[in-house]
Amino acid sequence: MLLKDIPTAHDIEKAEERIENYIHRTPVFTSSQINEIVGLKVYFKTENLQKVGAFKMRGASNAVLSLKKEQLKKGVATHSSGNHAQALALAAKLSKIPAYIVMPQNAPDVKVAAVRQYGAEVIFCEANLEARESTLREVVSKTGATFIHPYDNYDVIAGQATAAKELIEDTDHLNGIFSPIGGGGLMSGTLLSAQYFGNKMAVYGAEPKGADDAYRSWKAGERILMKNPATIADGLRTSLGERNFPIIQKYVKDIITVSDAEIVEAMKMIFQYLKLVVEPSGAVPFASLLKVKNEFKNKKIGVILCGGNVDLAKLPF
Amino acid sequence: MLLKDIPTAHDIEKAEERIENYIHRTPVFTSSQINEIVGLKVYFKTENLQKVGAFKMRGASNAVLSLKKEQLKKGVATHSSGNHAQALALAAKLSKIPAYIVMPQNAPDVKVAAVRQYGAEVIFCEANLEARESTLREVVSKTGATFIHPYDNYDVIAGQATAAKELIEDTDHLNGIFSPIGGGGLMSGTLLSAQYFGNKMAVYGAEPKGADDAYRSWKAGERILMKNPATIADGLRTSLGERNFPIIQKYVKDIITVSDAEIVEAMKMIFQYLKLVVEPSGAVPFASLLKVKNEFKNKKIGVILCGGNVDLAKLPF
Repeated sequence: MLLKDIPTAHDIEKAEERIENYIHRTPVFTSSQINEIVGLKVYFKTENLQKVGAFKMRGASNAVLSLKKEQLKKGVATHSSGNHAQALALAAKLSKIPAYIVMPQNAPDVKVAAVRQYGAEVIFCEANLEARESTLREVVSKTGATFIHPYDNYDVIAGQATAAKELIEDTDHLNGIFSPIGGGGLMSGTLLSAQYFGNKMAVYGAEPKGADDAYRSWKAGERILMKNPATIADGLRTSLGERNFPIIQKYVKDIITVSDAEIVEAMKMIFQYLKLVVEPSGAVPFASLLKVKNEFKNKKIGVILCGGNVDLAKLPF
Repeated sequence: MLLKDIPTAHDIEKAEERIENYIHRTPVFTSSQINEIVGLKVYFKTENLQKVGAFKMRGASNAVLSLKKEQLKKGVATHSSGNHAQALALAAKLSKIPAYIVMPQNAPDVKVAAVRQYGAEVIFCEANLEARESTLREVVSKTGATFIHPYDNYDVIAGQATAAKELIEDTDHLNGIFSPIGGGGLMSGTLLSAQYFGNKMAVYGAEPKGADDAYRSWKAGERILMKNPATIADGLRTSLGERNFPIIQKYVKDIITVSDAEIVEAMKMIFQYLKLVVEPSGAVPFASLLKVKNEFKNKKIGVILCGGNVDLAKLPF
């Protein structure tokens, strides 16, 4: 994968125009109590308030709206049981095209219902990656739908990049941004927007210790896949994508890993002081900032609250 | 208490100017998923995002900022273990005047700490109303501080009225507003703003079944005090105030009472779809709307999310 193929500033600006009516321009929240406790100024980009409750709506919308006319008719497909599935289903619904979502048989009912609510067709498969991929291939070959990868896709990356672009525009001279790393879609987009629109602002990756493939890949200089991830941050258990890794390798300033206990603590502070519901993955960037806060005394730091889709019956407090 | 003494439109406009730098103009949230489920358009005024996490900051600020010069020096006092205590403490801190808060010995540590964090002096007393009142009298006679009642006070009512005024200004021709009733401070303010600035818009009171003194008082035509309130909505357990009752009696369109189960269900929907943290009391107006939603098909209804200070360790789900 060559770095010369990555989205340009123009690609991200086009994505922003394209998805304007499909997404919310989410607000930036601050809390004087949090600032006092942390000893710096924190600007939270509230992607938990995004449509479908996560930033994923940006990338999915840009991918759908970038399809060629002949592709549109046949619709889109993906395998996911998470926020990308809902986002792609809604983006397809808004574009009035079919969506086919491959989900594991053991996916929670509530997630299946959410995807169906947006009019997508759900195709069940065994609960393993091989079954997901083979079922997806069957669906694509039968329907002619275009596969939209949740993160390893340049249109998706350009879409996710719009979150950091907005954050940079809506704040004044941040000293850095903390963004989570799962597959690397949001992270690579954040890095590109910081380069293009943020005067090469420092961007810090935030990763759960129990799914630290990005940290290890970055240190090793080669992509190491995650085996048996174990973290409460279910949205960040995936391995880095092929297109995402080189962007992270080139531009990330540092990667900070955090324990589940640190994630839960950050989540509690977000609930308590911001009065916002975030999922565990959504609290990982703030947990990382809390860990290294002494390096940022009195600075202005952006933090992306990437999603809010948590099972209320399973809150960790 | 005469209705001719109640705050005028001018009083509320002056309150709005006065408190401008002490409060947030909170945003109005909507959710297309909630609108679909409920069958009407709901506009949530997010007072859970207000300073100190509740609308109480409005009334407390207006009361402090309405003090005469000679009163200011001696500060303010109240008895409360709830949001009014924190609001008065912060308003006093911002005005650089002393605040004395009488709290029961068994008040949760976190509430005591919150009040002290704003620089107020906490005076403990026995955990009953008589002890609270006598301790408050002692404090007032010793310090010369002005007692700011949490709701039975016209400056407080005028301050609380600004929430509905903003909601009316930030939406387009609502068909009605649902507002909670505890002591009646927010409710009477909401009613006045609907009269003055909302073209006499219908306002519906929302009350827990387990603390339904407003409903019973309204039906009886005389103020009936609440004995042994029993509801999860701890912010609404108080009895209607003397100054609040006549305003409610004159202007309220209807009062809808809800069970704790209905409150919890509404609270869950607010967490799930709006991604907002609300306390049980904050969910009571939406619970009431859910109960009578069929009477408002396709209408536009404002709902005041009055507070978000919930103990995360005791969420009812």
